[in-house]
Amino acid sequence: MSERADLPGTDPAQFRVHVASQAIRLFSENGYEATTVEQIAAAAGVSRRTFFRQFRSKEDVIFADHESLLEHVAEFLASDSADPWASVCEAAGLVFDFFRRNRDLSMRRYRVVQHVPALRDRELVTGFRYERLFVDYLRSAVPREPVLEVVGFAAAVTACHNYLLRSMIKGDEDATAEALSQALLDVRRTYGVASGSKTSTPESKSVLVVAFPPGTSAEEISRKIHEQLG
Amino acid sequence: MSERADLPGTDPAQFRVHVASQAIRLFSENGYEATTVEQIAAAAGVSRRTFFRQFRSKEDVIFADHESLLEHVAEFLASDSADPWASVCEAAGLVFDFFRRNRDLSMRRYRVVQHVPALRDRELVTGFRYERLFVDYLRSAVPREPVLEVVGFAAAVTACHNYLLRSMIKGDEDATAEALSQALLDVRRTYGVASGSKTSTPESKSVLVVAFPPGTSAEEISRKIHEQLG
Repeated sequence: MSERADLPGTDPAQFRVHVASQAIRLFSENGYEATTVEQIAAAAGVSRRTFFRQFRSKEDVIFADHESLLEHVAEFLASDSADPWASVCEAAGLVFDFFRRNRDLSMRRYRVVQHVPALRDRELVTGFRYERLFVDYLRSAVPREPVLEVVGFAAAVTACHNYLLRSMIKGDEDATAEALSQALLDVRRTYGVASGSKTSTPESKSVLVVAFPPGTSAEEISRKIHEQLG
Repeated sequence: MSERADLPGTDPAQFRVHVASQAIRLFSENGYEATTVEQIAAAAGVSRRTFFRQFRSKEDVIFADHESLLEHVAEFLASDSADPWASVCEAAGLVFDFFRRNRDLSMRRYRVVQHVPALRDRELVTGFRYERLFVDYLRSAVPREPVLEVVGFAAAVTACHNYLLRSMIKGDEDATAEALSQALLDVRRTYGVASGSKTSTPESKSVLVVAFPPGTSAEEISRKIHEQLG
């Protein structure tokens, strides 16, 4: 039997997603513990041996689409970018879009994962791999930025993304791609790296910030600034 | 044999830390796989049964001090605070101080964990429990703040803490408690929640931000501001 005959033209990433979908369907129908590797292989139309060439375990298969997605995100980040901070946010958007397009599958997985502590842990670890990818990318793309700023930014982007992703999967109608874009723009503004702030005025400008009581006259403000600068 | 006779006056938290220390010593001397639960129990002066009353597995014991520490952090956050954002940073400081005081143990554990992927994953999951504690605390302490701001802030604090904690454990002399305080103050400033920003001067000041080329004279700057304000 040709094991891939039923999947003409699929690449390895699509193949992994196909097996993952079948596995998640079986887990949600029959329970995670009760489902065997043999049943998953049969449902996916592959042999047990082919299954184990691609996956080490049942636990492995349930997040198999993340492997492909992580590669996709890494490729996306590897292309040139005029604004690395925005690229990280776009990369997070790609992840969100993928799971929104596969929302039924994501929801079924969510329900399976909630009941198996080992899978919940595995999901957290998987999420952390995106964060590490973002940190590694930014450290090479904006090497002069303080490392802790990069670390904090990547963590904030990942956490906001994960929060909205979970909300979307649980059926929150407000957790849209647009809401994510806005949330990640807010993170960039918070860190002073939105277009129009740090990014577009790198070395060509100095910036002066002045705080004063409301109602202060323009003359008074000018005079105080002059004093400080002089 | 009285199992606790060699540990007079210790409370359950100290007892767990004691067993964890002995386990980590054995893991680092003999390897993680080669060390048995029996050897850990013997080194800690407890029976196998007592061991399994406290821990489910070898994997459990290596991070046992985190359990106590998480409880300690939760208690700390449960007390009243005039500045919840600062309290979260202080809580992260408590964690850092604990591992700095036990740096030898932390370093031995670090070396063991690096070689066992399952333990590395477990450590990530443990770290995430602090982040979730911070999110839950802030959502109840500052309920009017947008949830994504809280989520991003807690993630940034946790990530910066973890980065400096790892640096400290690996022997970086610059990764001090003071460096952590400064880094977390920077996170609060980034989010506009440091004392002196959002917290203490909410409506009493207006702020003017002016960008200008370096070398611009004070007169020129004053004139431009005057123009804009007028």
